[in-house]
Amino acid sequence: MDTCNKVSIYLENAGYACRVMGVPKTIDNDLCGTDHTPGYGSAAKFIATTTGEIYLDMCAYDVGMVVVVEIMGRHTGWLAGASALASLSGWGPDLIYLPERPFSMEAFLADVRAVYQEKHHCLAAVSEGIHFADGTYVSEAKSSATDSFGHAQFGGLAARLAEAVKQDTGAKVRGIELSLLQRSGAHVAAQTDIDEAYQAGAFAVEQALGGSSGKMVAFARENENDQYRCRLFLEPLVTAANHEKKVPLAWINENGNYVLPEFIDYALPLIQGENRRPLENGLPRFAKLKKIPVK
Amino acid sequence: MDTCNKVSIYLENAGYACRVMGVPKTIDNDLCGTDHTPGYGSAAKFIATTTGEIYLDMCAYDVGMVVVVEIMGRHTGWLAGASALASLSGWGPDLIYLPERPFSMEAFLADVRAVYQEKHHCLAAVSEGIHFADGTYVSEAKSSATDSFGHAQFGGLAARLAEAVKQDTGAKVRGIELSLLQRSGAHVAAQTDIDEAYQAGAFAVEQALGGSSGKMVAFARENENDQYRCRLFLEPLVTAANHEKKVPLAWINENGNYVLPEFIDYALPLIQGENRRPLENGLPRFAKLKKIPVK
Repeated sequence: MDTCNKVSIYLENAGYACRVMGVPKTIDNDLCGTDHTPGYGSAAKFIATTTGEIYLDMCAYDVGMVVVVEIMGRHTGWLAGASALASLSGWGPDLIYLPERPFSMEAFLADVRAVYQEKHHCLAAVSEGIHFADGTYVSEAKSSATDSFGHAQFGGLAARLAEAVKQDTGAKVRGIELSLLQRSGAHVAAQTDIDEAYQAGAFAVEQALGGSSGKMVAFARENENDQYRCRLFLEPLVTAANHEKKVPLAWINENGNYVLPEFIDYALPLIQGENRRPLENGLPRFAKLKKIPVK
Repeated sequence: MDTCNKVSIYLENAGYACRVMGVPKTIDNDLCGTDHTPGYGSAAKFIATTTGEIYLDMCAYDVGMVVVVEIMGRHTGWLAGASALASLSGWGPDLIYLPERPFSMEAFLADVRAVYQEKHHCLAAVSEGIHFADGTYVSEAKSSATDSFGHAQFGGLAARLAEAVKQDTGAKVRGIELSLLQRSGAHVAAQTDIDEAYQAGAFAVEQALGGSSGKMVAFARENENDQYRCRLFLEPLVTAANHEKKVPLAWINENGNYVLPEFIDYALPLIQGENRRPLENGLPRFAKLKKIPVK
């Protein structure tokens, strides 16, 4: 949106008759000026679905186990928070850590220990961007009180935290990165999200044809009788450029290890609807765009 | 099946009137005496779906990239080979390595280099159980010609191979473990697999009621007019116990870096059909079994 804004200003200053519209899309959901962004609902659905399945797998064995699931989100916890949606089915994570609150290794290990002692298993979901109070990313920390961060490693945050838990509790552990799967898992996309993505694009074209420029398409939530409803409107591009929308601190619990019902109420409508996708050979079919050589 | 066989023999020797039937289930598909095992088709569908989506994500950027996807299979390559099914859609892995053939780091790096130089990206799928000619698992090797295996690491095989590629080509790399997701991803289960799992259980009960014991339910493929068909029959438990069914070497290409069409023909029918699963809150619903305290 920042680039879009710069192009828009440049063209206007140059007197070049071209209308510029920003159409939002990011699974990160960190764009200001809009209730949410297309892409987020589908990634949230993948994350809640997958975290629930991992939870059930973890519970299938008598041997105790701690699983740490690493979810995208460098500066905001929208995606990691979405794992909580699985708790509505009874198999959400036991603990969730977002980058909106500083991370303490001691508190984390104590939280996991408490859950593990009670339930003999524990699933913790963490944003990739969790960081200590001094701003250092946990994923990049070179040393810690647990003495498990002292040497060069290939593994990511999940593997590091799992190793710290192993040293602390002696439990069987597993670190899982949802990695590229959470942003490419179109097979489990939310139809609500797909529909809204089309609507946002169509609205941008309509408004540009109507004379608008330098604007971003945005969603405003206007529920009716507790039914989810969003209205599209235009926001100045400058509103969205260079600001990140974070998860409100009021939506995170006091201990900083779970999200509150306000988060669930916000995210749940966005993951609804089954993607009516075409299949070919039992696998999802995607459009193929051909590159046409320029003469 | 080995335990099943032991229980069966014990009961028979003890003259205890109890019939014992083995009902096969393993995503690993490594059971002898049967064409395939319930569970495999669904895991294969998850793996092909996900690998295809990762491939498309990798191709979405101008910057070149090498992705190594680590797939379950300690001694057999049935699961890793299933990633090749995505090639029918045009976005299968570029390279596939199974544990049925010894792994050479030099050959692997040369393979990746060749693909990367031609296409500016490369996706390699590897079984977790790939090993060098001397039997050492690549995931456990402490040193290698690439000098990147010399110290204690938390990361798994995918991270190690990705790091080796990075040092060799300088490319941007990503190591991805499908981890527990590939065995718990029921949301994308194959209906063919689900139907066959029910049939196998029903057949076991019917045959036990009819007087059989000490047997395993098995599938025999008997296609009709090129249409996939399987017939159920009983196999002595001892046939399946303590043997592993490997991917036939004749189904792997000469360079040991891909599977041949015979593998595709075998696996493709097993991933067919959409799972008509019930949803709740936009997420899969699973049965909940209550623990009833023993008096």
